[in-house]
Amino acid sequence: MPTTFASAQLALDLVGVFVFALSGGLVAVKKRFDLFGVLVLACAAALGGGIMRDLLIGSVPPVGISDWRLLTAAALGGLVTFLFHPGVERVTRFVRVLDAAGLAAFAVAGSLKAVTTPGVSPVASVLVGVITAIGGGIVRDLLAGQVPEVLRRELYALPAMLGGVIVVVAAQLESLQDWVLWTSAALVFAVRMVAVRLDLNAPTPLRSTPT
Amino acid sequence: MPTTFASAQLALDLVGVFVFALSGGLVAVKKRFDLFGVLVLACAAALGGGIMRDLLIGSVPPVGISDWRLLTAAALGGLVTFLFHPGVERVTRFVRVLDAAGLAAFAVAGSLKAVTTPGVSPVASVLVGVITAIGGGIVRDLLAGQVPEVLRRELYALPAMLGGVIVVVAAQLESLQDWVLWTSAALVFAVRMVAVRLDLNAPTPLRSTPT
Amino acid sequence: MPTTFASAQLALDLVGVFVFALSGGLVAVKKRFDLFGVLVLACAAALGGGIMRDLLIGSVPPVGISDWRLLTAAALGGLVTFLFHPGVERVTRFVRVLDAAGLAAFAVAGSLKAVTTPGVSPVASVLVGVITAIGGGIVRDLLAGQVPEVLRRELYALPAMLGGVIVVVAAQLESLQDWVLWTSAALVFAVRMVAVRLDLNAPTPLRSTPT
Repeated sequence: MPTTFASAQLALDLVGVFVFALSGGLVAVKKRFDLFGVLVLACAAALGGGIMRDLLIGSVPPVGISDWRLLTAAALGGLVTFLFHPGVERVTRFVRVLDAAGLAAFAVAGSLKAVTTPGVSPVASVLVGVITAIGGGIVRDLLAGQVPEVLRRELYALPAMLGGVIVVVAAQLESLQDWVLWTSAALVFAVRMVAVRLDLNAPTPLRSTPT
Repeated sequence: MPTTFASAQLALDLVGVFVFALSGGLVAVKKRFDLFGVLVLACAAALGGGIMRDLLIGSVPPVGISDWRLLTAAALGGLVTFLFHPGVERVTRFVRVLDAAGLAAFAVAGSLKAVTTPGVSPVASVLVGVITAIGGGIVRDLLAGQVPEVLRRELYALPAMLGGVIVVVAAQLESLQDWVLWTSAALVFAVRMVAVRLDLNAPTPLRSTPT
Repeated sequence: MPTTFASAQLALDLVGVFVFALSGGLVAVKKRFDLFGVLVLACAAALGGGIMRDLLIGSVPPVGISDWRLLTAAALGGLVTFLFHPGVERVTRFVRVLDAAGLAAFAVAGSLKAVTTPGVSPVASVLVGVITAIGGGIVRDLLAGQVPEVLRRELYALPAMLGGVIVVVAAQLESLQDWVLWTSAALVFAVRMVAVRLDLNAPTPLRSTPT
C-alpha cells in the first residue's frame, strides 16, 4: 500500500511538474525572455510549489531539488515550450488550462504527502495541498513581474482546497486509494475549468468597475 | 510558567494575525481584487511572517497552517475587510496603523518563540522577531505588486528590532514575564506610530529629491 | 580537514555576503530608498541565498541569521554603499560585477555546504549551490520591484551550475581542497564576466525583437 501511494504520489508530482513547467515557460516566452530565462522560469513554476510543501512538512531536502525525475520533467517542459511554443496570442488561454491541470495534480499530491507524514494535522494537510498547488504559479508570476493568478481570478484556490479536503477525509476514513486520488484531481481540474470558462463571459469586478 | 508563555504567545500571535489579515484585506480591496483574492491576500499577510519564523527555527509544520485558531482569525480578518471596508481614500492610513499593531505583536511573538526554542542564539532570536514582524507585510506587498512598506518607510524594521532586543535581554535575565511582553509590544507600536506621524509631515528623500 | 572546509566555507560565505550586500545597497540607492531601506535591501540580498540554502538542507537556524560575522558583513556592506556610493549612472555596471563575484562565491559555498551535509544527494547539492547563488539576487530584485537579473540575462544560472558541478565532482573524487574551491569560484566569476561583456555588445532578443 505505501508502494501504491508512492507511485501515485510520483505520477501526480510528475504531471504537476511538467504542466507547470510548460506554463512557466509560456509566461517566459510571452515576456520574451531568452532560453535561459525560459528554463529558469519553467523550473521555478514547476518545482516551487513542491519545494514549499516539503519545507512546510519538514521533508528536506525537498524532492524538487533531489529527485532527478522531477528535475528532468521540469527542464523538459521548459525546453519543449522554448522550441514549440504556439503563437503569443494563444498563449494566455493555454497557460490557464495548464495551470488548472497543475493545480489539480499538485493539490492532491500535496495533501497526500502531508497527510501521510507523521505529525501533520488534517487541517494543515489541506492547506499544504493548497500551497503546493498555488505556490508554483505564485513564484512564476512574481518572477515574471505580474500579479499572481490566484489573486486575480475567482475560484482558483478553492478547487485546490476541495481536492485537499477529499484526500484528507479519505485518509481519515482509511479509504485512500489510487482511484480516489485521480478522481479528486479530475474534479479539481473540472471545477477550475468551469470557473475559467464562466470567467470568459462574466468579467470580474476588477475590470468592469472604474476606480 | 511555560503555560503562561504559551498563552501570551498565542494571544500575541492572534493579535498579529488578525490585524495583518485586515491590512492584507484592505490592500486587496484597494487593488479591487474579488472576494477570493481578498481572502488569499489576508491569509498571506497574516500568516506569512509566522510561517517564515517557524521555518527558520525548524518548528514544522508551522502553526500558521496547523493551528485552526490562527487560520480562523486570518480568514475572519479577510472576511471582515471584504464586508465592512472603509472608503478607499481612508484605506491607506488605516493600513499603516494596523501594520504598526501587527509589527508590534509579531516582533514580540517571534522573538519570544525563537528565544524559547533550544539551539537558537540571542542574535538569531532578535532577527527571527524582525522577520516575523516584517515578513507578512512583505508577502502582502509583493503579491499586490507594490514595493514593500519596509523599504519605503524609515523606522519600520527598527522598532521591531527594539522589541526583539527587549524580549531577548529579558530572557537572558530570566525575567521574561507577561507584562514585559505586552509592554514591549506597546513600545514597538508607539515608536512605529511616532515614525508614521512624523513621516506625514516630513517627506522622505525618496519623494522630494528629483532623480 | 573539516576545519579547513569550515574556514573556506566561512570565507566564501563572507565574500558572497559582502558583495551581495553592496549590490543590494546599490539597487536601493538607485531606487532612492532611505538609509533603512538601503540596509534592509542589502541584508536581504546578502543573506537571502544562504538562508534558502540552509532551509533546503535542513540546517536551522540558518547561519544567515545566527552568525554575527555574516550579519556584520551584510550590514557593513549596506552602510558602505549608503555612505560612498558612486554616481547613479555608474551603478548598474558595478552591480553586475559585484553580482558576478557573489554568484561565484555563493555557488561554491552553497554546493560545498550541501555536499558535506549527510543525506543531500549530488544532484541536489548542485542545485542548492545554484539556488544559494541566485537566491539573494532574486530577493533583491523582487523587493526592489524589478524583474530578476537571472531571467533577463543569459548565462547567469549556468556559471553557478558549473561551479556546483565542479565542487560535487571533487567531493565524489574525495579531492575537495581549498585550491579547488577557490579555482571553481574564480572560474564561475570569469565565465559570468565574459557573458556580461559579450552581452554589452550583443543585445538580447528581449530588446531587439519588437513584440
